[in-house]
Amino acid sequence: MRAERTLKLVLEYDGTRFSGWQVQKDMRTVQGVVQEVLGRVLGEPVRVVGAGRTDAGVHALGQVAHFKTRNPMPTGRILRALEGLLPEDVAVREVNEAPPDFHARFSAKARWYRYRIFRRRRALGRQYGWFVPYKLDLARMEKAAGGLLGRHDFRAFCIATSVPERPFCTVSEATWTEGEDELFFDIVADRFLHSMVRLLVGTMVEVGRGKLPPEAVEEALTSGERKLVGPSAPAYGLCLMEVRY
Amino acid sequence: MRAERTLKLVLEYDGTRFSGWQVQKDMRTVQGVVQEVLGRVLGEPVRVVGAGRTDAGVHALGQVAHFKTRNPMPTGRILRALEGLLPEDVAVREVNEAPPDFHARFSAKARWYRYRIFRRRRALGRQYGWFVPYKLDLARMEKAAGGLLGRHDFRAFCIATSVPERPFCTVSEATWTEGEDELFFDIVADRFLHSMVRLLVGTMVEVGRGKLPPEAVEEALTSGERKLVGPSAPAYGLCLMEVRY
Repeated sequence: MRAERTLKLVLEYDGTRFSGWQVQKDMRTVQGVVQEVLGRVLGEPVRVVGAGRTDAGVHALGQVAHFKTRNPMPTGRILRALEGLLPEDVAVREVNEAPPDFHARFSAKARWYRYRIFRRRRALGRQYGWFVPYKLDLARMEKAAGGLLGRHDFRAFCIATSVPERPFCTVSEATWTEGEDELFFDIVADRFLHSMVRLLVGTMVEVGRGKLPPEAVEEALTSGERKLVGPSAPAYGLCLMEVRY
Repeated sequence: MRAERTLKLVLEYDGTRFSGWQVQKDMRTVQGVVQEVLGRVLGEPVRVVGAGRTDAGVHALGQVAHFKTRNPMPTGRILRALEGLLPEDVAVREVNEAPPDFHARFSAKARWYRYRIFRRRRALGRQYGWFVPYKLDLARMEKAAGGLLGRHDFRAFCIATSVPERPFCTVSEATWTEGEDELFFDIVADRFLHSMVRLLVGTMVEVGRGKLPPEAVEEALTSGERKLVGPSAPAYGLCLMEVRY
C-alpha cells in the first residue's frame, strides 16, 4: 500500500456566492466545492480541513487547508487539475507537501484578517468592502484599536451562542490604514472567536461616528459585557489574508 | 419658463451585467439605466450623452455624461437621489453644472483607458482583469507600446465594420506597468476607434508571447493591414478611467 501523504493548499475565494467555508447540507460551501473537485482529481473521497471557518460572504486571499491522500500524483499536476476544475470564484495558489503532523487549523500560529470600509458608494469592487456613509473620526478608531493589542478575553466580541470555554486571544497587530476613498483594518491574532472581527469593526465604526467612546472596546474586553459592543459589520467587507505557521 | 441647464455627471460602473453603454432595445445598458433613474428624479424624460460608448462588459471608473433639464433641483440633491435609486453596479461620483455648450463627447480632449492582465488565476476581482496563463516578455510589449505614441491611422485596430472616414488618433501615453501578479496597460488618446484598446492589447499579448514581432504594431499602423493584428482581448479587462476636458 502506498504511503499516506499530507498536502497543504493555499486557497483564494470570493465569498459572495458561498454559504461560508464549512460543509453544510444542500449549501454551496468552499470546503464542499474543494472536497468534491479534489475527490475527482485524486479518484478517492477526500476530507479537507481548513485553518479558519469563514462565514457566509467572507472572502479569502490566503485560506490554508490540508488533506491526506495515498495518491502519488505530483503537487504540480494536482495544482493544474484543480485550476482547471474549480469554479471561477475559487483559485488555488499553492499545493505543497507538508509534514505528516501538519494540521491547517491546529498548527497555525497566527491569522491575518483585513476589513475594508468604503468612504464612497462604489460600483467596481463593491463586493469587497462595506460602504459607510457617515463621517468617521479615524483618530478615535485608532485609539480604540490600540486597546486590542495583547492577550484578552474576547467573549464580548463573540456571537453569544458560540463563546468557547477559553475565550482568550492574543492580538499582535490591530491597525487602521487610510487608502484612496477607503479605510481598512488589519488584525493579526493567534485565534479568532466567531464573528470577532466583524463585531470589533462594527464597534469601532460606532466609535468613529461618535456613538461610542474610544474606551468602549477596552471596557468590553475587561468586563466581558456586550452593552458597549456595536452591531456586526457585514460579512462581505472581511477577507482572510494569510495564515501563518 | 425656467432656464435650461446643462449638467455633467461622472459615473462609475461595473460592466459585467450591462450590454454596454448605449441604449439598445430590450437590453440592460448603462445609458438606459441612468436615463430611466434621472427621469424619475427630475420628473421628466431625460437624454443622457456619454463621452465614450463602452462595449458590453467594459467597466468605467470615470465615464462622463451630460444632460439638459429645466428642473431647478440643486446638484447635491440630484446626486443623493441618484445614489439612492441607481442599481448597485452604477455609482455617481459627481454632478456639476456645466456651460451651455458643454458636450460630454465632443468637448472631451482626451480619454484614459486601462487594461488589466492577471498573471495568475484569481478569484477576488476576477471580473476586472484578463487571466493570461502564458509567459509574457514585458520588454517586448513595452517596445510595441512605444510605437503607438503620436498621431497615427488606427484603422487596422478597429472592428472592420466600424472604421470611420478619418481613422486618426493621437496617443499621448501608452505604457505597461507591472503590479503584484498583474500587468496593466494605460493608454491616453484624443479619441478611440471601436475595440481599439482591446485589439491593441490582444496584439501586444501576442508580441509578449513571441507569436508576433514587437514591430507588428508599428507595421499595422503604417500599412493599415490587419494581418499583424492579434485577436481582441476580452472586454472585462478594460476600464474607462477618466475623460479629460
